[in-house]
Amino acid sequence: MTDLALRFAAVQTIVRDLGRFALAYFNDRDKLGITMKGAQDWLTVADGAVETRFRAAIAELFPYDGVLGEEQGGGAAENLWVIDPIDGTKGFLVGSPMWGTLIGLRDGDHPVIGMMNQPFTGERIWGSANGSFWRVGEKPARRIRTRACTSLSDAVLASTHPDMFGAEEAAAFTRVRQAAKFSRYGGDCYFYALLAAGHIDLVIEAGLKPHDIVALIPIIEGAGGCITTWSGGPAIGGGRIVASGDPALHRHVLRMLAT
Amino acid sequence: MTDLALRFAAVQTIVRDLGRFALAYFNDRDKLGITMKGAQDWLTVADGAVETRFRAAIAELFPYDGVLGEEQGGGAAENLWVIDPIDGTKGFLVGSPMWGTLIGLRDGDHPVIGMMNQPFTGERIWGSANGSFWRVGEKPARRIRTRACTSLSDAVLASTHPDMFGAEEAAAFTRVRQAAKFSRYGGDCYFYALLAAGHIDLVIEAGLKPHDIVALIPIIEGAGGCITTWSGGPAIGGGRIVASGDPALHRHVLRMLAT
Repeated sequence: MTDLALRFAAVQTIVRDLGRFALAYFNDRDKLGITMKGAQDWLTVADGAVETRFRAAIAELFPYDGVLGEEQGGGAAENLWVIDPIDGTKGFLVGSPMWGTLIGLRDGDHPVIGMMNQPFTGERIWGSANGSFWRVGEKPARRIRTRACTSLSDAVLASTHPDMFGAEEAAAFTRVRQAAKFSRYGGDCYFYALLAAGHIDLVIEAGLKPHDIVALIPIIEGAGGCITTWSGGPAIGGGRIVASGDPALHRHVLRMLAT
Repeated sequence: MTDLALRFAAVQTIVRDLGRFALAYFNDRDKLGITMKGAQDWLTVADGAVETRFRAAIAELFPYDGVLGEEQGGGAAENLWVIDPIDGTKGFLVGSPMWGTLIGLRDGDHPVIGMMNQPFTGERIWGSANGSFWRVGEKPARRIRTRACTSLSDAVLASTHPDMFGAEEAAAFTRVRQAAKFSRYGGDCYFYALLAAGHIDLVIEAGLKPHDIVALIPIIEGAGGCITTWSGGPAIGGGRIVASGDPALHRHVLRMLAT
């Protein structure tokens, strides 16, 4: 890819603008005297508006790049941006800060930039071949790294919800969960960021879409972690995903998920 | 109780100080190059330090009031402060913002002030007979109210973790969960605040201690919601707890939990 540094600088600026925009929708939840139906409609509007704004920014700066989005689909291109405008829709719906805007950049089949933005807490996490970083508000970004954890019995396991698994998947997930130190639900993309920062050891999920995961791959790998499908293949297409902070733990858990 | 207004003003000041203090520990997680064991030790230190600081403030301002705390126990008094220095220890351990400092004040058996503080997001939520309020950072506090939701099939249900229930409890919880619109885990005290603000309709939990719940009662009731044990008794002692935004939904769910 030409001009990767230029694209990296651009996405840092774009994501700030998208964050302010998404946050206005999130804060508006307080004005709706809200019903669940009203909240869902407003989430759909927010999702579409953030994606449209992102597409306009990319079209202006990099007109030959492609965009694959949750809301409006999209096609193939050598430089393909993948956006999930609001990852963690249930968190967003209930007013919790455990959601984020995800932007990834693929160079062919290889994810080269990953960015997650949480505008309510003011957190921005990104990764690339240069490493992974976490920035809170206007404080300087700090480099993040996964932590060592070779034994599953010491590992903290996270997942969005136990109901995200089919019956066979649930059995495999439960095997790992019961052997882990403890589990935590309800985090969506935020859990992958916490794994990259060395606070969580494992994230195991299923049924993910490409836009849920592409941005998270450079963040996890840039921090020293592993992220693959349950069978050890590339995570780029989504599906059944496992992320680990420690490569030895990753190999062990892949064996447990397979049997 | 004499001087309730004075105590209300005092706790607003005290909780700001405690918040800065607890946040310093939370932010230190990034410096520990952390192991799980290290994180647990540091949580214990933070918990104890916040409680000690609170006890010192109360002893100075209201020497005849009692304090019941998670870490150091405590006794009976007509004016009894109940503190959970860090409610949501697993959230705190994994670096998620879904934890809070809880401070409640009992006048005999009646909880009269409830305060929850989340210093990382800058959120403070409180309730009393004057209503319930939510403040984010330095923005003006806004009054919060629960939302109407008469049908369980429209209700969003939240709970900290499915493993918090014993076998019989789990069966009752599952009956309600399967009839609800959707469920969300992983929130601790933050879910009760979201219920008071009208974003969640039900919180169902078990195994709670008094310090987990006393502060939340005035917040829920001041916003128009209901909070009781599963059998409809006072929530003040903890145990099996259900909170609902809509009183009609509360009655319906109590029947489902009982059968």
